[in-house]
Amino acid sequence: MRGYGALGMKGWIRHMRKQKHVNFIQLNDGTGKPAAQIVTSPEICSKDVTEGSCITAYGKYQESIAQGQSVEFLAEEIKVHGPCNMQKYPFQPRKIHSHEHLRQFLHLRPKTALTSAVLRIRNTATMAVHKYFQENGYIFIHTPILSSNDCEGAGQLFTVKVSEKNDDDEKKPIPEFFTSPVFLTVSGQLHLEAVASGISKVYTFSPAFRAERSQTSNHLAEFYMIEAELSFTESLEDIMQVMEGLVKFLTREVMETSADDIRFVHRRNSASSDLLTAIDGMINKEFIRLPYVEALNIVNKICESPELKVGNCDFIM
Amino acid sequence: MRGYGALGMKGWIRHMRKQKHVNFIQLNDGTGKPAAQIVTSPEICSKDVTEGSCITAYGKYQESIAQGQSVEFLAEEIKVHGPCNMQKYPFQPRKIHSHEHLRQFLHLRPKTALTSAVLRIRNTATMAVHKYFQENGYIFIHTPILSSNDCEGAGQLFTVKVSEKNDDDEKKPIPEFFTSPVFLTVSGQLHLEAVASGISKVYTFSPAFRAERSQTSNHLAEFYMIEAELSFTESLEDIMQVMEGLVKFLTREVMETSADDIRFVHRRNSASSDLLTAIDGMINKEFIRLPYVEALNIVNKICESPELKVGNCDFIM
Repeated sequence: MRGYGALGMKGWIRHMRKQKHVNFIQLNDGTGKPAAQIVTSPEICSKDVTEGSCITAYGKYQESIAQGQSVEFLAEEIKVHGPCNMQKYPFQPRKIHSHEHLRQFLHLRPKTALTSAVLRIRNTATMAVHKYFQENGYIFIHTPILSSNDCEGAGQLFTVKVSEKNDDDEKKPIPEFFTSPVFLTVSGQLHLEAVASGISKVYTFSPAFRAERSQTSNHLAEFYMIEAELSFTESLEDIMQVMEGLVKFLTREVMETSADDIRFVHRRNSASSDLLTAIDGMINKEFIRLPYVEALNIVNKICESPELKVGNCDFIM
Repeated sequence: MRGYGALGMKGWIRHMRKQKHVNFIQLNDGTGKPAAQIVTSPEICSKDVTEGSCITAYGKYQESIAQGQSVEFLAEEIKVHGPCNMQKYPFQPRKIHSHEHLRQFLHLRPKTALTSAVLRIRNTATMAVHKYFQENGYIFIHTPILSSNDCEGAGQLFTVKVSEKNDDDEKKPIPEFFTSPVFLTVSGQLHLEAVASGISKVYTFSPAFRAERSQTSNHLAEFYMIEAELSFTESLEDIMQVMEGLVKFLTREVMETSADDIRFVHRRNSASSDLLTAIDGMINKEFIRLPYVEALNIVNKICESPELKVGNCDFIM
């Protein structure tokens, strides 16, 4: 039945509804775009065509009589690439799982609606960072990860050595790979500053590492950091404009390009509906500039409860 | 003389030509775009206005009577942000320095025409990688750098520990930061494959690390690697098309967007003029597909000299 030119819809079955004479399949390929509903007869669905399974449905689009969609996909053949044992599969199709539950199955998480939405939003945000700087004439620099400098003081470094594993099973002494101590970078700032003395606008968006033991949500051992260096600035105002522009541009890009994913994550987290309004206000208002200490005082006045108190920030002034 | 609305040209002086009644300054701000020639009277040039110094020239554009340019910049005031002591500065303005010489002054290299051109070309190439994958529906994934898996066998790993420096000067035993051995990633492949089981097209462009001791140009301890995973491929041909498309797209983008820099680096390296023609041919021809062993035989037949022999490749077949 399948021939050249036949359409093939590929993906993983997110939902499946079986009726006596017809099955309805909702397919997910991870792009985030809602696929047309697949309509099929029970006869061509083998027992392996279940929720969670990976399939190609061959067939054609047709007008739909159902409400809420103009077309549906009439499947004439279904090929199962990978079946799914729902007894062992940790995610139930119609159930909302907690973050704690998802976290136990790192390698399967991208199959869920929530994790794949977050990954797509992160993709949009990442590209928006590049778009902002590139459109404003900045050059992207790959600052090094392996570094012999500790940039911000020696309290939080990871050190890098050749693994003992490299010497097979024998416990031979490991020859030094580097001639001086090597650390994972805590910041690309020093390298960027050097480049900025020849290319006047540069930025990086690279992994950074801090060996800070902490139970708060402030610190990760590994994270991506945006850094920019701008020559010929005349005042702090120049830099604040770049920062304000970046925050607004990023937010606008994410809200527009990933609108469906943002709304989905928002609903899933049962966040207050004021949040989207607040974000909208933030994008369209001018940022107020005020000294750090004044800002801290305002925040502290608002957050009288001790656990909301801003205490983890270093005073820079 | 300087007022609001006066134009300010900012940058580093690359060349300066002094005459009795007029000085000609060629300014460089690292963007790669050729700036208009600055014309100024010797009186307003302090002794610090020299080659290598960092300045802002205030003034206005005017019609030029010189050949090869329609406008020039008439400077009425020159502010020196940073003078340059040419006795100590290691790069001479009109001299072509060897790579070996430049390499001794890593932090100053971005000031040279060659290094800044290479950094701009790298920026173009990096953005082209993202453009190709994004336009083809791929999602960018930040695969982790710190990893507990060794992906491609345990012969080439760096291991990561908390630095001894962290314990101030006392030699206290260092508590383990991680609960299991942690390495620098040699590849994001395993993580990408997991994500590709939920998002059908993904890629990464991240640092990778190999602790391979080698005097050849094949290996670096740290390098950036492009990896893509594509679900629902039907044949090797699907993947080869992605690869061919990427190589051609990248090359075309670099040749077009960084045309001036490419020509400059090309001239500086005295490369054969056939090279640009060969690249042009490569972009416009279809790639021939052949088994790896056949390709190796062809290359070995061409490169009879032992040092050109392809011997460092692993046989995958």
